[in-house]
Order: sequence, then structure tokens, then C-alpha cells
Amino acid sequence: MNFTERQNKIIEIVKEHEPVSGDRIAGYLGLSRATLRSDLAVLTMIGILDARTKVGYFYTGHDVKPLVYDQLFDLPVKEIMITPILVEQTLSVYDAVTNLFMYDVGSLYVKNEADELIGVISRKDFLRFVIGNANAENTPVAMIMTRMPNIVTVTPDVSILEAGNLLMKRRVDSLPVVSKDNPLKVVGKLTKTRLMSHFIQSGNDSNNS
Amino acid sequence: MNFTERQNKIIEIVKEHEPVSGDRIAGYLGLSRATLRSDLAVLTMIGILDARTKVGYFYTGHDVKPLVYDQLFDLPVKEIMITPILVEQTLSVYDAVTNLFMYDVGSLYVKNEADELIGVISRKDFLRFVIGNANAENTPVAMIMTRMPNIVTVTPDVSILEAGNLLMKRRVDSLPVVSKDNPLKVVGKLTKTRLMSHFIQSGNDSNNS
Repeated sequence: MNFTERQNKIIEIVKEHEPVSGDRIAGYLGLSRATLRSDLAVLTMIGILDARTKVGYFYTGHDVKPLVYDQLFDLPVKEIMITPILVEQTLSVYDAVTNLFMYDVGSLYVKNEADELIGVISRKDFLRFVIGNANAENTPVAMIMTRMPNIVTVTPDVSILEAGNLLMKRRVDSLPVVSKDNPLKVVGKLTKTRLMSHFIQSGNDSNNS
Repeated sequence: MNFTERQNKIIEIVKEHEPVSGDRIAGYLGLSRATLRSDLAVLTMIGILDARTKVGYFYTGHDVKPLVYDQLFDLPVKEIMITPILVEQTLSVYDAVTNLFMYDVGSLYVKNEADELIGVISRKDFLRFVIGNANAENTPVAMIMTRMPNIVTVTPDVSILEAGNLLMKRRVDSLPVVSKDNPLKVVGKLTKTRLMSHFIQSGNDSNNS
């Protein structure tokens, strides 16, 4: 949903001259009051303008950009994905945990010699292993990772809403984003944190544009 | 933003009789075409109805409930918070990790004898300790938890947007929700996961109401 040029002009006029009657707005635009009726109804209903009887239109000050469903939920994952940390399957659990802290991430992706995605390890996987086993230095990550084909992945064009539903249903912290042509080639990572910050950022943008 | 009774009636009429002209809609309602002009403009602009010249109005089938800023971002935290798992500070790290897996949560809150919040421990804290120390069975959680006053908390009336910004800025996985009267009394928990599912659920609801 986007404003028309005329609606944007109306908003500017009200910002400058509030409170201002519909007739005066029409005057500024050189249009009839009747012509503006729908625009004023839309802007009032959406909450950009406030109308008070016998006083006129006010700018609500919210400066609310209408929330756009497309921007929030229909955007493809590739627009917000982050870069994953990829490690070799021979890396020890101990060194992998070091990586986890060094990069301050919640999970690592594991690749083979051909750079193909073969596994995913999360903080939870690490903790489960380490709490019961002191031998983190001599155990390769390959022994504790979740393996293909048990990894839920998405392609870059999947919508944010679809990816979010997958994260919820499969109860995972991140989704590897893989190439459409090669489902083993990782091109990105979508985490719950990234998704949350996308929504919060949209809320911030909508609040003070 | 809510639809008026008349707007809801218009939607129902179009659903049933599409394609239907503005005049016929006015006829069904016993109103003049001019009276309906703003309503039809609003519904078309929002994307509930589609208007085709010389054909009439169609129901888009999207059944898009307009995204409501208030519902998405202004809702108080208490509307979506979950119940935290609280443990005693004398519990061993080992037993605490067992709790973490049993309840499948990402963090535990620690209370004292007076049921006051005194600490928070996350998977990350556990992992950091356990990777370097085999003595998880004889170490109390009090030794590894993040302590008050270093814990970021929110009260139940804080908005979702504000809480989300705190989660992002402070880089924590959850916020204890504490009583307004007693900042040490935990009444809930807001996690990044809960916040993400709130947004995704809103997207789902908006998509098929």
C-alpha cells in the first residue's frame, strides 16, 4: 500500500497548516472538496490524520508509515540473511566451541572438502555433548552434528513468513540458505535473532520515519 | 485500524456477488453511491477489494486483515510473555543443564530463598563453563550466572517494540519480566523465540483470516 502523490500533498498541507478544514485543503490543491473525500477518509482511517468536528484535520505526529505486509513478511530470505560460519568436519568439538565464542554465533555449519553442507551444530548440541564428556578436544564435530538430510534448509527466494514458520515448526535456531541450483551449497544463514531484528527494525522505521 | 460495520457489509456483498458495481452495492445497502465512495476507496486501497473499470468490484481473495501497528508492536509484553523456569542458586551446574534440556528452554532464572530474582544463566554461559571445566556436578549455578544488577529486565507494560530493541541492543536471548511494584519479583519471561513467533503468527493471521 503506497500513498498517491495527492495523498502525500495532503499530508504535507496538514503538517504545515493544522488544524485545517477539508475546504481549505481543497483550496490549497485547487480541487473540490468532493474530490478529496476518499483521500481524507483513507488518511484518517489509517491514522495519519486526525479529524475533529468543526476544527479540522490534524497531523497525528505518529508519522506512521503504513505497515507493509510485503516488506514485513513477503520479502525473500536473501534480503536479510547473514553470513554463516562454516567449519570442517574434522575440527574438534573444543575448537568448534572456540569458534562459536569468537564469532559470537549460536550455531556452526559443517562442510566437506567439496564445500558442500553436511552438518549443523548448535549451542544445544555442543552443550549436550560437553556436559557428559570431557573429551571435547579429541572428538571431531562430525560426531555430534545434525546431518543432511535431517537439516531443514531454505532457498534464497523463500519468503520471510515461510522461513519463520519453518523455524517455529522445526524448533531450530537457524536455517541454512542454500543455492536453488545446488541444495548443498550454502549461500547464507537465517537465524531467529536476525528475523526478530528485521521485525523490530521495521517497527522502529514505521515509528519514526 | 478496524473496519466499520458498513465496510464489513460491503466486503460480504462483494464476496457473494462479485463482480458487482458500486451502484449495485449501494442498492443492496439502500444507500446512495456517493455515500459509499470513501468506503470503497479505503477497501480498494487496502487491497481487500479490486476494482475493474466497467466490470465492478472483486473480492481479492487475500482476506488480508490490515496489519495493525498496535497489535504488532505496541502490545504490552505481558500479553505474550511465557513462564520462566526458576532454580535455586545452590543447584549444581550439571543439574541446571539437565533442567535446561528437560524443559527445552534456552536459559534459566535463579532465585534466592525470598523468591527474588538474583541471576540468569543462558546456554552460552553453561557452555563457556562446561567446556573448560569437568566439575559441573560440584559447582553451584551461583558461580556462573549473570547477577543482578547486570540483568536487563522489563515490566509487564513495556511495549513489544521497546522490549525487542532491548533484546537487540543488549544482545541477550531473553528478558525477565518483573513486577512493577517489586523489581525482583519475576512474573514472566520474554524470549527472542517468543517474539519471533508473535510476529510470524501475526503474519499468518493476516494472511488467512
